[in-house]
Amino acid sequence: MGTTQLEAVQEPKYWHLKTVLIDALDSEFEVGEILPNERDLAARFGVARATLRQALEQLELEGRLQRRRGVGTTVAPPRMGVAVGPSANVWPGAGRDAWHTIGCVEAVAPAPIAAVLGTAADEAVHTIHRERVMQGQPVATELLYVPAASVPGLSPMLTPASHAPAVLRELHTLELDGEDRAVELGSARAEDAKHLDRLPGAPVLVVTSRYFAGGRVAAASVATYRADTCRLTFGDSGTVEVTHHQAEGRRAS
Amino acid sequence: MGTTQLEAVQEPKYWHLKTVLIDALDSEFEVGEILPNERDLAARFGVARATLRQALEQLELEGRLQRRRGVGTTVAPPRMGVAVGPSANVWPGAGRDAWHTIGCVEAVAPAPIAAVLGTAADEAVHTIHRERVMQGQPVATELLYVPAASVPGLSPMLTPASHAPAVLRELHTLELDGEDRAVELGSARAEDAKHLDRLPGAPVLVVTSRYFAGGRVAAASVATYRADTCRLTFGDSGTVEVTHHQAEGRRAS
Repeated sequence: MGTTQLEAVQEPKYWHLKTVLIDALDSEFEVGEILPNERDLAARFGVARATLRQALEQLELEGRLQRRRGVGTTVAPPRMGVAVGPSANVWPGAGRDAWHTIGCVEAVAPAPIAAVLGTAADEAVHTIHRERVMQGQPVATELLYVPAASVPGLSPMLTPASHAPAVLRELHTLELDGEDRAVELGSARAEDAKHLDRLPGAPVLVVTSRYFAGGRVAAASVATYRADTCRLTFGDSGTVEVTHHQAEGRRAS
Repeated sequence: MGTTQLEAVQEPKYWHLKTVLIDALDSEFEVGEILPNERDLAARFGVARATLRQALEQLELEGRLQRRRGVGTTVAPPRMGVAVGPSANVWPGAGRDAWHTIGCVEAVAPAPIAAVLGTAADEAVHTIHRERVMQGQPVATELLYVPAASVPGLSPMLTPASHAPAVLRELHTLELDGEDRAVELGSARAEDAKHLDRLPGAPVLVVTSRYFAGGRVAAASVATYRADTCRLTFGDSGTVEVTHHQAEGRRAS
């Protein structure tokens, strides 16, 4: 950004190409427009296909380009701000929750989840599979784990349709002491990729949440957000408008 | 995780290889150990080099492997939990701040930053370059932008050494109304990459923060965290122990 004095750094070959491509994207292409194929682009910029591909991968990481199955590479719209950290602690499924339930099973939780929940390794846990849609597009999938001990009043007579609502209703009767979250980079598992319309292995932001009640972890969730289209927002002062690629000179499109 | 019933999804060739590699990492390698070269690995698992490389890239995204310049590919230690969202709002540089200052200049901010700060396009802004070190390793770099209007009492007689402390001291005299953050995926700019001991273009988590005082944005920052080694934590209930790759069956190492 030209604001700090740093020694020159050796830049890889695709780096300059990336800058040139960003200029081209800003001046010649509209959001949603399909880019020419790699062969034509490589010829136009006088670079090897491998170099071009590296630059395109970088631009995808930065949210400037989208690779869409059966469509090709398109110019990405600005990332959506997706509110993750609520200003006040709320239980999943309570109030104006952005998620909707896809299914619910009672099953043994993966060992690390069991460790977090403090459940026995062979103890079944209510597992609610949820999805979050924004602007008509699924942006995240989630597995929400609720140990039986957290919902002792749960009716034993549950149908597939009533299972998730009943678990959430019981959960909401507990007093929520607090919650915390961790965000890290991951790659989309096959089933998440399918829900999110991405290829397996696509970069995702994985948000792990813990919900505390009665001095223990009453529920935990692992949510997988599309990293290409989502900017996760935390705090109660509205959506942050600055993004990294904007800070590098992106013009409004 | 075997907890939801989903239709079979076509998985790319490297996907199965990744599972096999994870098993090998868990059973045969120690944290920090250098992996055999690509040729040997490809031969051992009977796959093409390109397939192997895709699987290795996935494992790097998931934080299981680290590519280190001049060393090769090593088995990564578990990611570090890095607290990003404080439990109480605090100004940058106040209290037990995890950052230390590298430098400070007064310069025109990039246009999107100026827009957030509400400063004129040609108005100089105090820009503090900071670094965050954990376990002896730089994990993040940050540019903190403070408009002159936020620090009206700043002495005009500043040396390079006194500039940043003076700006922070003045900032701390304001009452902080609130702060918010956004997290998104990015790729390391050359100068950030150098600080973080990564190659330019390496995946990073970009955290943009706004600090509110007197009904406006009194300061803003863009921080770049290593995505391979960091898990960003939010909330005041301690560090979240579950990580995505652990949830997929990683054993404690």
